[in-house]
This record gives sequence, structure tokens and C-alpha cells, in this order.
Amino acid sequence: MSACSEYYPTEPSSPVVTTASVPGPQSVQGLETLGQVFDARPAYFLADYEKSLGNYIVDADGNAFLDVYAQIASIALGYNNPKLIEAAKSPEMIRALVDRPALGNFPSKDLAPILQKILDFAPKGQDKVWSGLSGADANELAFKAAFMYYRAKQRGYNAAFSAEENTTVMQNAQPGSPQLAVLSFKKAFHGRLFASGSSTCSKPIHKLDFPAFEWPHAEYPYYAFPLAENEAANRAEDDRCLKIVEDLITSWPTPVAALIVEPIQSEGGDNHASTYFLQKLRDLTLKHGVVYIIDEVQTGVGATGKAWCHEWADIQPPVDLVTFSKKFQSAGYFFHDPLFVPNQPYRQFNTWCGEPARMIIAGAIAQEVTDKNLIQQVSRVGDYLFGKLEQLQSQNPDKFQRLRGQHRGTFIAWDLPSSAQRDALLKSLKQKGCNVGGCAEKSVRLRPTLTFEEKHADILLEALTQAVAELEN
Amino acid sequence: MSACSEYYPTEPSSPVVTTASVPGPQSVQGLETLGQVFDARPAYFLADYEKSLGNYIVDADGNAFLDVYAQIASIALGYNNPKLIEAAKSPEMIRALVDRPALGNFPSKDLAPILQKILDFAPKGQDKVWSGLSGADANELAFKAAFMYYRAKQRGYNAAFSAEENTTVMQNAQPGSPQLAVLSFKKAFHGRLFASGSSTCSKPIHKLDFPAFEWPHAEYPYYAFPLAENEAANRAEDDRCLKIVEDLITSWPTPVAALIVEPIQSEGGDNHASTYFLQKLRDLTLKHGVVYIIDEVQTGVGATGKAWCHEWADIQPPVDLVTFSKKFQSAGYFFHDPLFVPNQPYRQFNTWCGEPARMIIAGAIAQEVTDKNLIQQVSRVGDYLFGKLEQLQSQNPDKFQRLRGQHRGTFIAWDLPSSAQRDALLKSLKQKGCNVGGCAEKSVRLRPTLTFEEKHADILLEALTQAVAELEN
Repeated sequence: MSACSEYYPTEPSSPVVTTASVPGPQSVQGLETLGQVFDARPAYFLADYEKSLGNYIVDADGNAFLDVYAQIASIALGYNNPKLIEAAKSPEMIRALVDRPALGNFPSKDLAPILQKILDFAPKGQDKVWSGLSGADANELAFKAAFMYYRAKQRGYNAAFSAEENTTVMQNAQPGSPQLAVLSFKKAFHGRLFASGSSTCSKPIHKLDFPAFEWPHAEYPYYAFPLAENEAANRAEDDRCLKIVEDLITSWPTPVAALIVEPIQSEGGDNHASTYFLQKLRDLTLKHGVVYIIDEVQTGVGATGKAWCHEWADIQPPVDLVTFSKKFQSAGYFFHDPLFVPNQPYRQFNTWCGEPARMIIAGAIAQEVTDKNLIQQVSRVGDYLFGKLEQLQSQNPDKFQRLRGQHRGTFIAWDLPSSAQRDALLKSLKQKGCNVGGCAEKSVRLRPTLTFEEKHADILLEALTQAVAELEN
Repeated sequence: MSACSEYYPTEPSSPVVTTASVPGPQSVQGLETLGQVFDARPAYFLADYEKSLGNYIVDADGNAFLDVYAQIASIALGYNNPKLIEAAKSPEMIRALVDRPALGNFPSKDLAPILQKILDFAPKGQDKVWSGLSGADANELAFKAAFMYYRAKQRGYNAAFSAEENTTVMQNAQPGSPQLAVLSFKKAFHGRLFASGSSTCSKPIHKLDFPAFEWPHAEYPYYAFPLAENEAANRAEDDRCLKIVEDLITSWPTPVAALIVEPIQSEGGDNHASTYFLQKLRDLTLKHGVVYIIDEVQTGVGATGKAWCHEWADIQPPVDLVTFSKKFQSAGYFFHDPLFVPNQPYRQFNTWCGEPARMIIAGAIAQEVTDKNLIQQVSRVGDYLFGKLEQLQSQNPDKFQRLRGQHRGTFIAWDLPSSAQRDALLKSLKQKGCNVGGCAEKSVRLRPTLTFEEKHADILLEALTQAVAELEN
């Protein structure tokens, strides 16, 4: 029996949309009420999570959508998963919710086994973890670890801070508050707080009006697809971008302490990076003493056919820090070099030091992904889906372009000729019962759960074939 | 029947410490194991939350401490509160845990009533909320709201961004990424991310090695106590500090868009601000077009004898943004001016937009605080405790100084002559069964739950009287 049938014996067999438009009247009314206490303008519809199940999200009007967006790539196993419900009802969870500890000062007896389950799922080469609350938080905690590491290398790990450092830091001035940079990439998305926001470079609307650190953005390779037919051109593109990276590291007015990169830029348009590119970044970061951070917030936890997407590149030696959130529900960074643990306590610290309730959920997700061989399944279903999409692309070359994600599980995307057509396609798909998301200006991104199967792919493909046919040029 | 007896009929009647030292052998061993996967260096002991109850925290060795620190001021009602357990087992909670929505895009049907419970507890003058994940996150979200508001006033709320803004923001350069400052205070604590960290100014160890925004820190009044006997001197101190605030606003090289202040600086040493000072900050911020943010992360939710500490000052017109976290478990900011909702969606946005599980807990806490009249109780118990501490101070003027927090509920603190003596006192209290925290260099801060009663105060006072007597000069 498949994992999905086992988890969700009563999952709908197909989408049902009964309202003339989406959002339907109940959603519209409910969102109006919600709008009085919350910014409901970005809401697509009001969801009924009690009725949602498996790969189907149900809205307030009773419409059931096949969910290929899954809360911006954040639902790992499907809605109302029985194993997660079990975890949610466990005594450990009740305590995590009602007796939330300041984990650094008064850790609970069960913290070590809870963290161990998360560590058992760590990327190859990583065996330590520090916990946070969201993707943005995870990246900023990783930046803090990187800055401390970078300065410790200069000062000596156990060297004392100078009197000047201790004085100037209280004035936000160097050398106590050093001017150090994180290098990221154009079209990158690493979150929307102030440091993560300075490394984010996907859309102006994410950043306008906020002060930012003067940090550099290199160019991320923009490949011709299909990859197999464009190897030479794409290698040249890699080399062009790598040169920009090295030039920025050596010429930026402030030292570049860390580099952060997504193995596939997700929010920025599902731009892929080759194994060659990711490995060369390792070589460059080692050459120039730069901390190498991989952001797996959206790409992590199985969706690409590996537990962590950058494992496809088998980067050697392993990268320094790997950040996670979204599908793992818990957030934080993995690492392996003990020198990334600061020389004193209370340097990487805050009241909560993570969210124990979400750590328990993460442990349960990791266990299920392993027990049910879901990564293998994602690879199989992804290859099936990709093959069908290739056909659709070849039949509609004017409306379906740059299909990407071959052999990257269900982490698949393509472009439409324009933003308006992409938006029209997503709207049409919603009306046909498929909830699908976009990214960048004109891309469609598929982000189903890990329990998405061929039968779900077929439903999506049928709706998509119709929607593409109906799409006006 | 008192709230505490009703909640916790089997709460211990006194602390029990059976180990020769704290942490005891089981804690030491458990922390060693934990240390292999987590930074356990700041841990005081390993806690057993299954056995903890009400105002007592139990450790891995079975020691039961009267908890007057309460997870760095973050446990509102006591351990294993039956009403919170009920909320934790509710169907809404199960769904929040297993079907965590991207609240902005796919909000749940029950989000509006959940938020309404939080809003019902809003400070006087505030009727809207935006949600985050921690105190640092709440403050940074408030900074974002403040920066957007500040620029909207200059540009016009509905005016379009200029082409130059849209271009420069992608380079982290002005005018798209404007150079704007948040003014905070010396000894302030607002969190440890990069922008919140730039406004934090309590200890170098919180900030060393991290890049910071060049933001100013004004001086926070440092009063002579008791307040009633030092009115003239303290008013002069207020005026001295207010002048510094205004000088910084008018002279800082970059525009000061916002001011953030704690009504009582907590981490920084329980420094109180007078009604006069907080009102004058309102006058100054209005005069100079600066957004006024009150940080109630530690002072909020009843501990000072008001729902929110700054309500003591009855600031008019109400401040612009009030941030919360800790005892409320959920985090975010309250506001009232609709112009603090940005002119476009997706400007104040992220994947989670808050943590629905913690929102449910916050709603339950708010309900209980109201139903059980806990704020009144806190006032009564606080006055009782403060009176006894006054006696202790007058009997030990060399070891017990600057008692503060009169008529501020149980939010009480005092100084010892030195850091070493303060640490020795806290250690001695722990051995006597009272878990108490420090702040700043040489202060003791009391942060019990809201269900702390006279009987608990008596236990603390007895241990404290002994510990002070035993303290070496």
C-alpha cells in the first residue's frame, strides 16, 4: 500500500470546485471579517483545515483543491497526517506547549532525544544543530555563527576581547561591531528581517523602505534548458558567475565573512545551480577564508529527491552551515566544525532558543520520511511528472518554456511568456481544482507534499493540459 | 479559593532540595549528554516538566524549586496549568500543529476568533495586531512597520515608488534602502538579531563580532530610590535624559524614524522610567515625527499590576506600536493607526506570519488572567512582598540596596554591592530551593508567575533573609 493510501484512506479522489469563482462567497465573507483584525489582502481563500486531508486543501466553501503549493512548500506529509496528530497529542507535546522552557537555561529532560531525531536527518557531513524559529531567523543565526567564527580565526578562538572592542560595540562602532559582509546572489531569497533582508534580492517590494547592510550580490547562473543539451553554454555561465563571486570577495570594501546560496533559487524563479558551481563555491570560500552557508529552507526535506538538495552536489569538504525551516517546521542550522560553537556561552543565545513544539513535529516528520521511503517515492513521482510535462512543453512551446527540475524530485518549474499569462494560468488551475504557486516574474513552481503520487500528478496534468490549451496568447 | 489552589490543588507546600549542590548529579549527567547535541553551557539544571507544577519547577534529581524566575519571565500561569492543557488538547491546537498554514495566503477559518482573543487583551488605545515569533522578531517587525510609515509620510501613503527606489533597493543602496535610524537607550534590551541587536545596548557579549546599524543610544534615567523621597532629583534626571533624546533626534547624521523604549529596562537592570519621562517621549516623538515604540516583551501581561506596564503612564495620545512576547507566548505588535498597515500587501509578510499554536495559548492566557482577576492579585501580592523587602533592606543596608518596583506588582528588583555577591546570593537561594534570576551587573530581579501568592512570597522571604544573613561582605 502506498504511503498516501495508508495515511489517508479517505483522501478525495479528485478536486471539487462548486463555486463559480475562487475565492467563493464564504471565503470572501470570512476574509472580510478577518481583514478587520489581520492583513488578509494576500489571502487566496479561507481554508478549512478540519476538512483538509492528505494532498487536498478544503476551503470555507467546501471546495477541495489538490494542493501543489502546500503552504509555500511547507507541508511535508499532507494535511491531518495521522502520525503528526499522534505527535501533537503526545505528553511531550502538551508539556512543550504549556511549559515552554527557556531552552538554554532550563532545558527539559527530553530535549536531547528530541534533538537527536532532528540530527539523524542532518545532511551528509553535518552532525550538530542550533535551533531557531523561521527561515529568516535560521539564516540570521547562521550569519551570527559565521561572524563569530570569522573573527575568532583572526583573533584566536580563546583570545579575550580587547577593551576597545568592548567599548566600541556598545556604540555600534567598529572594531566591536565590525564591518563585515555576507555575499549572496541576485534573485536570492533568504528572509525579510534586516540582515536576511540585506542578503535577499528577489523583488523590490520585499525590501523597499528598510535600511540595509551594504552587502554584495553576485550573479547566480541562468541556464539554458534542457540542461543535457546546453552543457557547454551552461558551464560558461557558471564560470562567468564564479568570476563575479571571486571579484566581489576580493574587491568589496568590507571583508566578506560569509557566502549564502540556495542550491535552487526558489522564490527567485527556480534557478538551478550545477554541481560544478556549488563545488567551485566551496573551493573559492576555502581559498578566501569565507564561511559557506547553504540555505535549504525551501529545498530541504526530500522534495528534490534527496533529503537535502545540496547533497546532489556532494560538495567536498562539506559546507560550513546548512539552514532549514518550512517543511521541517522546526528551523535552525546544521554544522560540523566545533569551532562554530562560540568560545563563550550566551553569545548564540536568546530566551526561547527554538520552539520545542516544532522540534517534536520535525522529529516525527523525519521519522516518517525515513520509514516510508518517501524520498525514493518523490524521485519516482517527480520523474513521472517531469516526463509528462516535457510532452506538454513540446506541444506548447509558445506557452510553456524552460521546464526545469529533471531528476530533482517534484521540485519542478517552468516559465510562461509573461507575468499576465502566468497569473491567468494559476487562476485557471485554481478554478479547475489545483492550488499551484508562482515564483519570480513569470514562473510556475510545483511544491507538492512528499506523499504526492502518480495519481495526483495525473490530476494536475489533466487540469494543466486544459488550462494551457485555454490560455490566450 | 485562590486561583493557585484552584489550578494546582497538589502544588508542593515548600521547596525540596535533596542534592548537596545544584545542579545535582542527575542534572550534571543529563547536561553532559545534552551538551553533545546542544550548547548546554548556560543551563542551570535539567528540568523535569512532567513533575513541575504551578509555581514549582522540578529538576532531574527531583529537587523542587519555588520558581521566581519562570523561564526568564515567560511563564504566565504556572507549570502544567489545567486550562492551558485543555487548550493544548483542543482540536484547534492539533490542527495548528499538524496543518500549520502560511497565515497570510491560506488563513484558517478560526484565525479571526483566535486573534480576537489576543486583541481583547490589547493595551488601552490599541486595537490592531500583527504577529511574529519572538521578542526580537516582534521588535524587528515593528521597526519595519515604523520605517514604512515614516517613508509613507514623506512620499504620500499611496504614492508609487520611484524607478530609482526600485533600482537602488536591489543594491541595498539609498534611496530604496534608506539610511534611517531607530533610537534606543543605553542598557536597553530589544533582542539579538541584527536590527534588534543594534538597538540593544546592555552587555557587550550580546553584540560582539556582529555588524550593526549605526543607530544612537540615548541615556535612560537612573533614579535614586525610594522614588517618593527623591522626586526632585529624579525629575532632574528625567530632564537630563530627555534633552539627550532630543539632541540625538535632531543631530544624528541619519534621520531618526523610530524610538523604542522599555517602560522598565529589564535585562539592563530593572531601571524604571517615570510617567513623566514616558509622556515626554510621546511629546518629543510627535514634535519630531518619530514613531514611538514601547517594548513590553518582558514587562507585559500583568506582572507589573497592569496588563501592560506602560498603561501606568496613561500616555496620550497612545504610543504607535507596542511589542510583546514572553509571558504571552505569542509575539507581535499592537497598533491603532491604520496607516501602519502598509499601502500594499506582501510588504509586511513572510511564510508563517506568526505561530498559530502560540496564538491559541496566548488567547487562553488572556482569558485566564481576566477570569481569575490575576492582575489584581499580582498587585496585592506585589505590595505585600515589597513591604517585607523594604524591611529586609532597612535591616541590611550594606547588602541590599536600591529596592525598586513599589506598586509595580511583583516586578521587583534590588542591587547588591557587587556582581560576586549577587551571584553568591542567587546560588545560595537555589540551594535553599528558590530559583531566582539576576539582571545587569549586580541586580536581582523577581519574575514570578501571575499565580504567585503571599504564601509563596513568605517562602521566598524566609530563604532570602537567611541567604542575606549568610552573605559575606
